Amino acid sequence: MQKPSIPKGTRDFGPAEMVRRKYIFSVIEKVFQKYGYVPIETPAMENLSTLLGKYGEEGDKLLFKILNSGDFLNGIDRQKLTESEGNKIALLISEKGLRYDLTVPFARFVVQHREEITFPFKRYQIQPVWRADKPQKGRYREFFQCDADCIGSNSLLNELDLLQIISEVFAELKIRVLVKLNNRKILAGMAEVTGQADKLTDLTTAIDKVEKIGYEKVVEELKARGLTPAGIQKIVPFLTMKGTAAEKTDLLRKLLQQSETGLKGLEEMARLFDMSRAIKLPFEPEFDVSLARGLNYYTGTIIEVKAVDVEIGSICGGGRYDDLTGIFGMPGISGVGISFGADRIYDVLDQLNLFPEKVAQTSDVMVVNFEEKEQLFYLDIVKQIRSAGIKAELYPDAVKLKKQFSYADARNIPFVIIAGGDEIASGQLSLRNMKNGEQEKLTITEIISKLNHR
Amino acid sequence: MQKPSIPKGTRDFGPAEMVRRKYIFSVIEKVFQKYGYVPIETPAMENLSTLLGKYGEEGDKLLFKILNSGDFLNGIDRQKLTESEGNKIALLISEKGLRYDLTVPFARFVVQHREEITFPFKRYQIQPVWRADKPQKGRYREFFQCDADCIGSNSLLNELDLLQIISEVFAELKIRVLVKLNNRKILAGMAEVTGQADKLTDLTTAIDKVEKIGYEKVVEELKARGLTPAGIQKIVPFLTMKGTAAEKTDLLRKLLQQSETGLKGLEEMARLFDMSRAIKLPFEPEFDVSLARGLNYYTGTIIEVKAVDVEIGSICGGGRYDDLTGIFGMPGISGVGISFGADRIYDVLDQLNLFPEKVAQTSDVMVVNFEEKEQLFYLDIVKQIRSAGIKAELYPDAVKLKKQFSYADARNIPFVIIAGGDEIASGQLSLRNMKNGEQEKLTITEIISKLNHR
Repeated sequence: MQKPSIPKGTRDFGPAEMVRRKYIFSVIEKVFQKYGYVPIETPAMENLSTLLGKYGEEGDKLLFKILNSGDFLNGIDRQKLTESEGNKIALLISEKGLRYDLTVPFARFVVQHREEITFPFKRYQIQPVWRADKPQKGRYREFFQCDADCIGSNSLLNELDLLQIISEVFAELKIRVLVKLNNRKILAGMAEVTGQADKLTDLTTAIDKVEKIGYEKVVEELKARGLTPAGIQKIVPFLTMKGTAAEKTDLLRKLLQQSETGLKGLEEMARLFDMSRAIKLPFEPEFDVSLARGLNYYTGTIIEVKAVDVEIGSICGGGRYDDLTGIFGMPGISGVGISFGADRIYDVLDQLNLFPEKVAQTSDVMVVNFEEKEQLFYLDIVKQIRSAGIKAELYPDAVKLKKQFSYADARNIPFVIIAGGDEIASGQLSLRNMKNGEQEKLTITEIISKLNHR
Repeated sequence: MQKPSIPKGTRDFGPAEMVRRKYIFSVIEKVFQKYGYVPIETPAMENLSTLLGKYGEEGDKLLFKILNSGDFLNGIDRQKLTESEGNKIALLISEKGLRYDLTVPFARFVVQHREEITFPFKRYQIQPVWRADKPQKGRYREFFQCDADCIGSNSLLNELDLLQIISEVFAELKIRVLVKLNNRKILAGMAEVTGQADKLTDLTTAIDKVEKIGYEKVVEELKARGLTPAGIQKIVPFLTMKGTAAEKTDLLRKLLQQSETGLKGLEEMARLFDMSRAIKLPFEPEFDVSLARGLNYYTGTIIEVKAVDVEIGSICGGGRYDDLTGIFGMPGISGVGISFGADRIYDVLDQLNLFPEKVAQTSDVMVVNFEEKEQLFYLDIVKQIRSAGIKAELYPDAVKLKKQFSYADARNIPFVIIAGGDEIASGQLSLRNMKNGEQEKLTITEIISKLNHR
């Protein structure tokens, strides 16, 4: 019989990975809560009418569709099945799909439950999403997103909260980060002052790559995309800008003089930098006018976070959008949000060896099942240890010591207790440190106190 | 535009439900961990070859199937689509399905990762499952299961651990429970001593209902199912048995005298009751020889838990099985497991008003955005409060007090801090208790200390 397997692009998480993943999620979640964000969850399946058309044509193709249950061919003209295109047939026989991200379900949630929600609504959501992407290294068909969004408030204090959340999460995880900020209105302003407001998408797509391909290549691409030489000339100073956020702000004030939108974006940025300084944010964000992320989605602040010590792309990102829920008929709701990339954060922690040792542990102590006839004694001490809030287990079978030790080893249990008839009579049990093999004789009270003080 | 909706049988969980659900899961998870159980997670999608044929014909129909991605009609003889039955067509165009429970994916996991696993393997798993059942009150198409299983050990100590886990979980949740125990071998013994070992399934199906329909109706059903009058006569004493576990054990020893299997089951039960008494399990499980649960699945101990104060069916159940992984070509692995019904536990807690008040809270305190010009001051105090580990937020917009208060009310935030220019100058801020409307003047240090000592 062949070994069973799982669909390509999906993963099993064994205990060792799970405890590390839980560690990441719990750090993020605790910080979200500290800032007043509250959890929601939405179903894995959404109606296809909710999902289709929200992610572009390419996205529609990447949706996992669920075959209608029961007699899915009931009422369908079979002839159509032989004639129509695959896409059309899919829609005849499936009306549900797996969620593709957490943003569209969140927008749907807000509109559906608008009467029950108190705005501003600060929600976080940590759930898996599914995409029928071609699987490759670091890209999965099932992966988790950790989103926090505040909607129904235009205040920049929300952006400031998100910057603080980013700061606290990565400080807690001990990952050194570079946080980049920009504002979509500045990008719009750039297009305006170069006289090519209609080319905003071409402009941002090209300059978003400046870090990767360099400024000369960007100029080439701008040419290829049909921007005028005069326009490109005006963009150059934006791309070659250096200095602190304050210095860049001064320069931009001149460059964007002719664009009301651009100046508005600049003002928002300046205020955000001021407030960050006032609350002594532990890092100075970098003002990066080439940062675009997601092109047409954001309308204000844009945020991107990279790890300093590992090259892996962004590990968190987000921004402000003006109209999250308009697609579902509820216009004018502005929001700002960020999303942590749990898989990449996992890789960073793994590569830098930053997972706390404690995370790898399962039980704190194991009682060896040394003599079958003493089982009631073992049961009693393992019960006492658990009552003290310590994770403990009794090996379930009175098998060879070697087997029990290797079980404790494999499970990364730091201590085992060994007690035969003599030890039990004297009340002095052997506590063995599984790391260095040292053994000492202690009473059960002493053992509990020792385990509790680690 | 129509309000968007979600597929029938699925649910959104808003913040109020989420924090309550998280409370239940965290209680269960903490107890699992205390007993040395470790977490795993498996993908939502499994290959249909893994799932099909594992849940009976009816179960196969209830699997959600996922349409193959990309060009799902590629290479398929279109003519077949017009001629074949729905079932067959489904398998032509879908090769993945959503998991139906956590047991089959766990079995698949164990076989697939057998080389990496240390046995005995005590795993827990808390994830959603999907069934294309007809939705009705209390029955959903997406719901969570919380399973703990120990496989690779025949020791009854594992059963004892599970009984203790049940005891701790429900004690912590403050739900009073009745725990019923039986052993499949006793049921087999009953069938044997009545000379109708081949009718085991009919026998168990019928007597499983004795609590619901009464003993006379069960006798009728046994007749209808073709058991001989002589056989039924021998079953009567089993069904009318009364008394303590010890008394029932004594009686059963006589009744099962002729069945080796039956006596083996009885011995296991007696040992389990003895050990439960020895470790002073806080409740005496009920020995219920009519308990069958799931008919052909279990091979040893059978466990069922009901709430005493709410009529809702079982809220936890499980048992021992001899051959979890045989279906995937790895025979001879015995295990024992339990599953908590999170949805029903939620309903019990809700009906008995047992959710701790603390669970409903979101932020511990909100700082009122009283005067726009004092925002930096507010930012500073909210930062100080968070640094003390207290969940705090600043209302993001300097809008009317009334609006800010009703936000705090709706979010169940117990305290708000109000500070205008005068209060800021004096250092005496107003702390308002949102429940009773009382207000007192305190320094920020006093406020933090007060919030920390609640």
